[in-house]
Amino acid sequence: MEFAPNNVANLESTTLDGDSAYDLLCARFRRILLLGDVESVLHWDLAVMMPDGGAGDRTEQLAVLQTTRHGLLAAPDMGDLLDRAATEDPDPWRAANLRGMRRMWIHAAALPEDLVEARGRAASACERAWRAARPADDFRAVLPYLEDLLSRTREVAAAKAERLGVDPYDALLDEYEPDARAADIDRLFADLRTFLPPFLDRVLARQAAAPPPPRPEGPFPIARQEALGRRLMECLGFDFAHGRLDVSLHPFCGGTVDDVRITTRYDEADFTSALMGVLHETGHALYDRGLPREGRHQPIGLPLGMSIHESQSLLIEMQVCRSRRFLDFAAPLIARELGGTGPAWTAESLHRWYTRVIPGPIRVDADEVTYPAHVMLRYDLERALIAGTMEAADLPEAWTTGMHRLLGVVPPSDREGCLQDIHWYDGAWGYFPTYTLGAMTAAQLFAAARDADPAIESAISDGDFAPLLAWLRGHVHGLGSRHTAAEMLTRTTGRPLETAPFKAHLERRYLGD
Amino acid sequence: MEFAPNNVANLESTTLDGDSAYDLLCARFRRILLLGDVESVLHWDLAVMMPDGGAGDRTEQLAVLQTTRHGLLAAPDMGDLLDRAATEDPDPWRAANLRGMRRMWIHAAALPEDLVEARGRAASACERAWRAARPADDFRAVLPYLEDLLSRTREVAAAKAERLGVDPYDALLDEYEPDARAADIDRLFADLRTFLPPFLDRVLARQAAAPPPPRPEGPFPIARQEALGRRLMECLGFDFAHGRLDVSLHPFCGGTVDDVRITTRYDEADFTSALMGVLHETGHALYDRGLPREGRHQPIGLPLGMSIHESQSLLIEMQVCRSRRFLDFAAPLIARELGGTGPAWTAESLHRWYTRVIPGPIRVDADEVTYPAHVMLRYDLERALIAGTMEAADLPEAWTTGMHRLLGVVPPSDREGCLQDIHWYDGAWGYFPTYTLGAMTAAQLFAAARDADPAIESAISDGDFAPLLAWLRGHVHGLGSRHTAAEMLTRTTGRPLETAPFKAHLERRYLGD
Repeated sequence: MEFAPNNVANLESTTLDGDSAYDLLCARFRRILLLGDVESVLHWDLAVMMPDGGAGDRTEQLAVLQTTRHGLLAAPDMGDLLDRAATEDPDPWRAANLRGMRRMWIHAAALPEDLVEARGRAASACERAWRAARPADDFRAVLPYLEDLLSRTREVAAAKAERLGVDPYDALLDEYEPDARAADIDRLFADLRTFLPPFLDRVLARQAAAPPPPRPEGPFPIARQEALGRRLMECLGFDFAHGRLDVSLHPFCGGTVDDVRITTRYDEADFTSALMGVLHETGHALYDRGLPREGRHQPIGLPLGMSIHESQSLLIEMQVCRSRRFLDFAAPLIARELGGTGPAWTAESLHRWYTRVIPGPIRVDADEVTYPAHVMLRYDLERALIAGTMEAADLPEAWTTGMHRLLGVVPPSDREGCLQDIHWYDGAWGYFPTYTLGAMTAAQLFAAARDADPAIESAISDGDFAPLLAWLRGHVHGLGSRHTAAEMLTRTTGRPLETAPFKAHLERRYLGD
Repeated sequence: MEFAPNNVANLESTTLDGDSAYDLLCARFRRILLLGDVESVLHWDLAVMMPDGGAGDRTEQLAVLQTTRHGLLAAPDMGDLLDRAATEDPDPWRAANLRGMRRMWIHAAALPEDLVEARGRAASACERAWRAARPADDFRAVLPYLEDLLSRTREVAAAKAERLGVDPYDALLDEYEPDARAADIDRLFADLRTFLPPFLDRVLARQAAAPPPPRPEGPFPIARQEALGRRLMECLGFDFAHGRLDVSLHPFCGGTVDDVRITTRYDEADFTSALMGVLHETGHALYDRGLPREGRHQPIGLPLGMSIHESQSLLIEMQVCRSRRFLDFAAPLIARELGGTGPAWTAESLHRWYTRVIPGPIRVDADEVTYPAHVMLRYDLERALIAGTMEAADLPEAWTTGMHRLLGVVPPSDREGCLQDIHWYDGAWGYFPTYTLGAMTAAQLFAAARDADPAIESAISDGDFAPLLAWLRGHVHGLGSRHTAAEMLTRTTGRPLETAPFKAHLERRYLGD
């Protein structure tokens, strides 16, 4: 073994004599967020590189990092430091950074250490049980674990609700989407609940009137799919000096701001899904890469909540890359890289493939028209479960009933029903609505971008994404958490989040000429 | 982006009410060592996966982990806890674990935080300067950085020497090789200094009397070299459910006990070096994998110092895999995997290739006969530099003079002279002697293994390494740090470390029939 270099620079002090409370807080949060970055790299490694036998070690490494981070965040003097810093220089940048610090502190300090521990254990046990129960289609096997985890999650919700002064469900939502409230989501979703069912009927009727598009015939070697994906990532502005593309079972975007790592999974028989998945994750990656350098390793330099993050992936995937304009540019390139010829490879055919609408039981396979129904089902159920008006044992029946009511689909099994998603079984409650909030946000932002600069859309036809990226950097990415999500959206689009741009997008794409 | 699972089990408490001082210490060291494992994974990622643009982030992540670990280790109450634990139950296992804890604590607590920081910065700056200076063959460019780093290293040596009650150089040596002392090394090296020069002359004369062995002709595709390496790794007992083989610029063995990651670098024109490199790192990996489960994440479960670690790689590489017995088994497999035919691919030819002796200026290219001269040169120089009887500016001349005196070789440049190794430029002083101590230990251990069970050596001819691995597990790997290196060697071989087995090995291999 050659000697492995070990020394690193910038060892920071934990105490900074003579500095302001704000400076002390910045040093602490820098440490906390760097430890979070470390966790992110370890999660990537776990999903992409780690041999199975490393799972035990990795679980313990992540637990120690979490404990260390929680300990720093919930330190006894943190509240006092935050109060002192609030009385110092009221510069707006600092104020925004302090707001982010306080929010992280409240979420951490709201929970006694034994509850953090108990929830962590319950989630870990439930997630393991789910991994076995899902392929076996055995909801009863995971139920006791889910009941335990739900009970811990209700405790967490109650504790955080008290500190935040909000309802228990809102307290969970706030972990993923700061300042979001179920009352606002209810209003937006109510509109979609009215709009979508008749809209879906019209789309399906129109779709049925034409023969299905010809299907590109495989096999498509993985190396060529990957080369194609990398080529299009670069077109969109992804810099491989600051990121990677790899393979994992569940696609995700991880890593750190200067080293963004996205993953996909390939199917030799069908390139379409992996390709669009790569472009989706590229949208996430571009957001992370564009975060403000001057806020690095501070709360203000973090991305906004999950709905804004999802809006950036959906803006690239749904608004841009499934558009006819994009496919006019990309179809010849796709055909060339994959060696395809004939009518299935035209921009028109690929566009028809990429905008098919098919109601089905699986969320991750859903198109953008039926996706909100999947989200609203989960949103309704998790609110009832957290409120205690429903119990975990009722899930299979409630799921089947709800799916049928919302989308006319009856899942053939729990595996394709209430067992399909990892979220609840891993302790993520309050996460689901951010998918549809993200889709709506994407439509609203892209409409504003087109209005602001018509060259953005025309350049896409030429494969030039620089105008779009410049606009996103200036209006979304580069702001980090300088404003709340609602403020950012209002500043950028002139309006708070609303359903109109999303509905207009759907109507134009699915019922337009 | 799909939701990334985040919850993990086993969140540990930092205080364990009612537990003994020893239990408290175990919880702390578990955390400290797990953070060390995290650093190891990040180092692997840096060398194998990370895009160049991630370097800045990674440096800061590692710095925060180091600071956190140092803070835990040098906590104000640690000395008191160690003293209290020493008065509790004197179980030998606990005593050995406590000895390891105390050693780690002394090394950490000996240094004031500003010195840790200053050394870290100086090493980081010097290592960067060296990366530019080496290819440019420009020692003067790195000299100011080296002078600064040497000055910090002398301070570190002095501070640790005082706490350990040893000489400054021994204090540095102790970081890599616990309890080793220069006085003992001097005695062993003096014997080699007498033995090796006339021995080398005899070997070279004998080698010159025969024509050189025929050389396997490439190119050798990397995929086939890798498949061959993996095949032989598995034969030796490497379990790919608990490890990986990858590519990096500088080969190393990293990761954790349950997830050992080795690397190599391939040359399409010459497979011999990468293949032996893979087997060398496999020796390191087998040691890590065999450490005692019951000492996991405790000092007693750690490998002994670098000389024992290197002995495990050299036992596999030098004692086993460069032997005629091993090549009798492996040559047909090598020829088959790489598609080789003809006289260059016989066990005899490959054995001659793998035991060629060629004095040259580069340590990492050296054979086992000339390697000790490279080590002794560096050992002499670093002792003089730490003692202050020589200055960094004198290095180029002293290096050239010493290399000529020890091996009759004059390096054509500083790049092939005092700039060739990263160690000093990265702050690793006191590391070099462990290479030759490891070579001697390997010979002594393998001789003991053969004596203990003659089946060990005969099985190797059949490609059966189970008897060897079982012996190593029982006598070396499975002991972890239960005993000191010197105690382990005396228990296992009946003798403290000595030169005789190494000299006997060289004589048998290079001058035997």
